[in-house]
Amino acid sequence: MALTIRKARTIVKATLAKGRELELKPLSVVVLDAGGHVIAFEREDGASPGRFDIARGKAYGAIMLGMGGTAQMARAENQAYFMAAMNGLFDGKVVPVPGGVLVRDAKGAVIGAVGVTGDSSENDAAAATAGIEAARLTAEA
Amino acid sequence: MALTIRKARTIVKATLAKGRELELKPLSVVVLDAGGHVIAFEREDGASPGRFDIARGKAYGAIMLGMGGTAQMARAENQAYFMAAMNGLFDGKVVPVPGGVLVRDAKGAVIGAVGVTGDSSENDAAAATAGIEAARLTAEA
Amino acid sequence: MALTIRKARTIVKATLAKGRELELKPLSVVVLDAGGHVIAFEREDGASPGRFDIARGKAYGAIMLGMGGTAQMARAENQAYFMAAMNGLFDGKVVPVPGGVLVRDAKGAVIGAVGVTGDSSENDAAAATAGIEAARLTAEA
Amino acid sequence: MALTIRKARTIVKATLAKGRELELKPLSVVVLDAGGHVIAFEREDGASPGRFDIARGKAYGAIMLGMGGTAQMARAENQAYFMAAMNGLFDGKVVPVPGGVLVRDAKGAVIGAVGVTGDSSENDAAAATAGIEAARLTAEA
Repeated sequence: MALTIRKARTIVKATLAKGRELELKPLSVVVLDAGGHVIAFEREDGASPGRFDIARGKAYGAIMLGMGGTAQMARAENQAYFMAAMNGLFDGKVVPVPGGVLVRDAKGAVIGAVGVTGDSSENDAAAATAGIEAARLTAEA
Repeated sequence: MALTIRKARTIVKATLAKGRELELKPLSVVVLDAGGHVIAFEREDGASPGRFDIARGKAYGAIMLGMGGTAQMARAENQAYFMAAMNGLFDGKVVPVPGGVLVRDAKGAVIGAVGVTGDSSENDAAAATAGIEAARLTAEA
Repeated sequence: MALTIRKARTIVKATLAKGRELELKPLSVVVLDAGGHVIAFEREDGASPGRFDIARGKAYGAIMLGMGGTAQMARAENQAYFMAAMNGLFDGKVVPVPGGVLVRDAKGAVIGAVGVTGDSSENDAAAATAGIEAARLTAEA
Repeated sequence: MALTIRKARTIVKATLAKGRELELKPLSVVVLDAGGHVIAFEREDGASPGRFDIARGKAYGAIMLGMGGTAQMARAENQAYFMAAMNGLFDGKVVPVPGGVLVRDAKGAVIGAVGVTGDSSENDAAAATAGIEAARLTAEA
């Protein structure tokens, strides 16, 4: 199953709605396909200009390594040089913290990833998860 | 006046609607702020995965050089080495063809740019212009 | 439909067999998925060491731009600065000549690309096409 | 003695067979020549898209530094800045963990390297070693 633009729009909208519900700081949210390429992105007013790169970095690392941001952070804590090496391979585009969340379909296949940034990493991940679940897909933070 | 996420959503939606009205190939559309940073992006199903980079390249060049894609193409035709030099400065992120369109407010100030890709460059520019005008802003292709 | 490793192996084997049948110079062949990521590669003995990058560059450009190498070459001949800009966007990884061939499934969706290098560009493309057809898929050179 | 494509195919096939025998996660395996250039690669279905870069990074570091991934990891643990410096020299393409394995011929000369990724680093190295030995060559993990 591919992640369609229709599903991606649902994810973006529901992620930002969750942020407003939790009264988080302005969020930015990106949806990538299974190859790490951008399908959709929105940045709320008041967010800093670098947020696209941060959101994408969270989601891109999840896609390329096949693990969510929480798992990546654990690896970075335990083996910093490994995550440094990953960033060498992927042109510095990996941000190994919560907020990068894998999107799986009903069969468990990775069909994309969502990256959220703006509030604490844990809140970013919670908003992304809410967005993915609103599209009836499975989130792996 | 700043280009808000609300205005950016209107531009994205109206640009894609214009593409469907004209029966263009699947389009991708990006909206950048006055600093060249991404506010919103959508890629329609069936578009190739590199379309984010191409759309952004059209809009980014428009912002950084202060001229629309049509004007940039004229410069590239007349003085190819100048555009090559611009790409050296801006890390290869400038795509000097129609479809990169400046967004001006009622006072004539540049408040952002739109980049569209997917069909012919001329059709891309027409869709971007329709999107900008739907948001009651002024397009400079 | 995804391009499986089983299909990719068939493509590699049949591409190289075509090269031997036509008595071409040593060939190198890469198979990429729909996101431009490597599934399989082989380089025949006697090929120069840079052939992986050349093969991948042919296939990668096809994926990112959604057009085969023959179409890319026509664009490069007509509008050199456009292809130069594409290489700026994609880190110099686009080789716009025949031998980069899109792979489509029965519904017409792009599911990957094949890149072949070693002989003339036209012979490279012929071998890639034979490989793709041996896997019962559709080639767009 | 050079590492031929025939030997490389044997290594790839036997490495993946070992992975299936040990019930490892989907593996990716690359074979490089004595100059660090790709001869052959395969990525099993279900592996994440970044696995080519990771596999090559393990094998490339082994070739350029003349030491296997296990020895590189020991160096990274003791002297992280040294490995960071190596990655500066080699464009971020060195992944200093087990799974990068040198290939030596009967006389002890390095004729290439194998990189495996997908399961734990130790299991990756075990699969690579099995692949190299199936080709009647000597592995240095």
